[in-house]
Amino acid sequence: MYCLLKCAPLILAVAVCHGWLFGDFVRKQELNEISLWPIPQKFQSSAVAFKLSPASFQIVHAKQSSAGPSCSILENAFRRYFEYVFGDLKSRKKVYDSDLVELQVWITSADPECDGYPSLQTDESYELSVDEPSAVLKAANAWGALRGLETFSQLVYEDDYGANNINKTEISDFPRFAHRGILLDSSRHFLPLKVILANLEAMAMNKFNVFHWHIVDDQSFPYMSRTFPDLSQKGAYHPFTHVYTPSDVKMVIEFARMRGIRVIPEFDTPGHTRSWGNGIKDLLTPCYSGSSPSGTFGPVNPILNSSYDFMTEFFKEISTVFPDAYIHLGGDEVDFSCWKSNPDIQKFMVQQGFGTDYSKLESFYVQRLLDIVAATKKGYMVWQEVFDNGVKLKADTQIHVWKERPQYQDEMAKVTAAGFNTLLSTPWYLNRISYGQDWVNIYKADPQNFTGTDAQKKLVIGGEACLWGEYVDATNLTPRLWPRASAVAERLWSDKSVTDVGNAYNRLAQHRCRMVKRGIPAEPLFVGHCRQEYMGL
Amino acid sequence: MYCLLKCAPLILAVAVCHGWLFGDFVRKQELNEISLWPIPQKFQSSAVAFKLSPASFQIVHAKQSSAGPSCSILENAFRRYFEYVFGDLKSRKKVYDSDLVELQVWITSADPECDGYPSLQTDESYELSVDEPSAVLKAANAWGALRGLETFSQLVYEDDYGANNINKTEISDFPRFAHRGILLDSSRHFLPLKVILANLEAMAMNKFNVFHWHIVDDQSFPYMSRTFPDLSQKGAYHPFTHVYTPSDVKMVIEFARMRGIRVIPEFDTPGHTRSWGNGIKDLLTPCYSGSSPSGTFGPVNPILNSSYDFMTEFFKEISTVFPDAYIHLGGDEVDFSCWKSNPDIQKFMVQQGFGTDYSKLESFYVQRLLDIVAATKKGYMVWQEVFDNGVKLKADTQIHVWKERPQYQDEMAKVTAAGFNTLLSTPWYLNRISYGQDWVNIYKADPQNFTGTDAQKKLVIGGEACLWGEYVDATNLTPRLWPRASAVAERLWSDKSVTDVGNAYNRLAQHRCRMVKRGIPAEPLFVGHCRQEYMGL
Repeated sequence: MYCLLKCAPLILAVAVCHGWLFGDFVRKQELNEISLWPIPQKFQSSAVAFKLSPASFQIVHAKQSSAGPSCSILENAFRRYFEYVFGDLKSRKKVYDSDLVELQVWITSADPECDGYPSLQTDESYELSVDEPSAVLKAANAWGALRGLETFSQLVYEDDYGANNINKTEISDFPRFAHRGILLDSSRHFLPLKVILANLEAMAMNKFNVFHWHIVDDQSFPYMSRTFPDLSQKGAYHPFTHVYTPSDVKMVIEFARMRGIRVIPEFDTPGHTRSWGNGIKDLLTPCYSGSSPSGTFGPVNPILNSSYDFMTEFFKEISTVFPDAYIHLGGDEVDFSCWKSNPDIQKFMVQQGFGTDYSKLESFYVQRLLDIVAATKKGYMVWQEVFDNGVKLKADTQIHVWKERPQYQDEMAKVTAAGFNTLLSTPWYLNRISYGQDWVNIYKADPQNFTGTDAQKKLVIGGEACLWGEYVDATNLTPRLWPRASAVAERLWSDKSVTDVGNAYNRLAQHRCRMVKRGIPAEPLFVGHCRQEYMGL
Repeated sequence: MYCLLKCAPLILAVAVCHGWLFGDFVRKQELNEISLWPIPQKFQSSAVAFKLSPASFQIVHAKQSSAGPSCSILENAFRRYFEYVFGDLKSRKKVYDSDLVELQVWITSADPECDGYPSLQTDESYELSVDEPSAVLKAANAWGALRGLETFSQLVYEDDYGANNINKTEISDFPRFAHRGILLDSSRHFLPLKVILANLEAMAMNKFNVFHWHIVDDQSFPYMSRTFPDLSQKGAYHPFTHVYTPSDVKMVIEFARMRGIRVIPEFDTPGHTRSWGNGIKDLLTPCYSGSSPSGTFGPVNPILNSSYDFMTEFFKEISTVFPDAYIHLGGDEVDFSCWKSNPDIQKFMVQQGFGTDYSKLESFYVQRLLDIVAATKKGYMVWQEVFDNGVKLKADTQIHVWKERPQYQDEMAKVTAAGFNTLLSTPWYLNRISYGQDWVNIYKADPQNFTGTDAQKKLVIGGEACLWGEYVDATNLTPRLWPRASAVAERLWSDKSVTDVGNAYNRLAQHRCRMVKRGIPAEPLFVGHCRQEYMGL
């Protein structure tokens, strides 16, 4: 048994080969060529190598598979991964005995889920066996097959003559966490569709499975609503060039589905809604300066029935446009100063017996909103403030932890002690940048690293890397996100014991070159080079 | 007289209109459309607007001009700026009376310098008068005309109907400092030619005039030497794909010349030379571990005549390949530990009476190197350590200040008190990144902000923004550099009194959108949008 991973010490890194995962060193050539990211749960490989010829190699449905050519998810993925493996090679005509002739993809459940959407419950496990003359990829459904195809493509390496090789390998793999997400913010800056799709592509290369689309916020409202067209007409940076049409949104969802990625939209209220106010009269609270309105507006007005009527209609639309079982409802950072200034709100506070505790008013709003959304049969995710304020939540609510104070470990303990599912983002605010190798701290954070029972730990469904949009747009988003988000990807997919930074450095440096080769401008970890450098700008 | 600059308060910014530069506000439309960067020395404009039609407008040589169609610098620039102004517009057929029909470019000296190279002494001043029916750009030579063409193109703005407008304007402009540079590092990461050219393009948009090419270093030697081909053959990341051929270097120099940009190569010795050792036997000092060589190597071996013989041949080549009057010889960060470990070096130290002061050995080397380079008739630039160590320098040597300690203000005072030309980089190490609007501190730094006489201040020839390559390559270099380097550009070009951050924010946000429109992925300063977003990735 051999260690195929690049374990040799390099710059930062003295890698430790431990356990059965990393058996021994293979010759340098192989060490340089292969690196899996994120690392599979169970992995055995030998130095026996097979060649793959673009002229003869095929990815096919296994005879026993429940899926066939009508499964567009798999057909698209076969083509994509064939191109990743052979895209840059001239065809090699001659076929040798030692060739690997095919990869059989075998879907084992009766329903391959080819026409469905991935969900929190999706089984993403797979088994991959590479041996002569065929490799076999077994998975319960198409989603697991997608993960296995990515792994297969990562096993292929070029030898000195440019030929594609793959070593005899056995892999049994599954994710540690079910929710592995990336948040992109299309409100602080509008993100052209092309940028979103490229990042979904990169997500698939890193086995991420949730695109958390923070689609609107104070600064702009690019979501084009069929029910309330004025929202984007008056709230987007530009009503035509800086919006997501219904067709754009469909394309994002379908492109993501093809890669086993859920799309969870966030419509954050009652704060972060300045842009909403442009299109919907009386939705926001008028702020007062002394005894008269100042002309500025605060959070959603929680004392008007019209606000709830609007939310009912709006979320009815959202629940049909986005197929995922969950919607993110935000609920973070509500600024009370405007509410406090408004005499009608003050009166309402007295009527309700809230005293001067405006978090009670916030909870009052959120409570009603949650009921509205629950009526659409969707589950909801909320930022941690909603939990912290004691709002009554459905049992399946997911609490999204993001604050730095109090320590996120304490918050995770509290949320899980209360029996709620939770996911972590605090250490993964990738918009925050600093000089040097900040991926190391990103990599070291662990969402289960808090004091709690096993039952509590099981309530951690995963985490999300967040790239808030104040300082990023199409010019710099992709290299800022990758490969830093890849560090989160391995934390959320691989076994808890995979923590060796030196080993990770070597694999990640090669993984980022692989992303570059596939067209993603992932930035360098440190000095060095890729065989094929990025050829965009 | 009207203020054409966007003086209206916006987000960060309460702009102050002061002096005759900023007379008064014009209507909002104009404020949104126009912004000059860097701001000219003298500037008058009125609300009278002329239209420019792509069907009729021309950039032409003035009848009195000493330059004509054989001046390729100007011919190329006419085409380039015509495309910047009209590139995204459909042609407008009808010509109106109020149209500006041409820009006449009038070169006033007998020698327009069309076939030469820019230098430290180049006169880059120009005068621009925009009035019916012709605009006139007057400059002593082609270099000043290039700066004026950039300014002219920045004056053009689109009205609500997409038509190009320009206001009646008088500008008299010249740079505050003669040396306005950008350092790129092609050793820590190889930079494809395309990336270097794109950044030269961006430099011209910001009136930078020096490309300091830190071409080789410890990590790799991509410069392909005709005299010593082994240097890149054995010292580059890859001998074919990661090198600059003689033709590549020529192309960079010519592309830069067309934009009035000098190319100053840096071949840093005796430290930062690990990659040189691969191709040249015995060039580097063998380090010792106890009494035997450890197998590793240190700085250039200063005690062998062969080292100086090599440098003589090598710099003879460099002095012919690079036409600029200056070469940057580095001389920074020499690590003495290897020298200290080597018994031959120890013996030499005793012979020379250097005691244990290895900075004397460093000076011994640098002194001989400077004499070698002086013999090629080139001037030299060196990092501040060479001055700090008391090396004897030619009077025209330029001392490049970069260290954070002691304070750069003290160093600038010392260097100029000793009568040397100096340039500043300390506050402009743009490889250092942090979260938020770090351009503000970049903008606030001033190279003449130290205690000294007027004569000392005059010895400050300018400064350079440095983007060291440890963490940047083709994937992320351009958005990391721009528009942060633009802040340096205005500091080095515009009048000392131009320091209003709010006003700068508004102009810079628009200037970065202009760069984006011209194909440069300059990152955003903060939230907001460009009319035309970046359409690469």
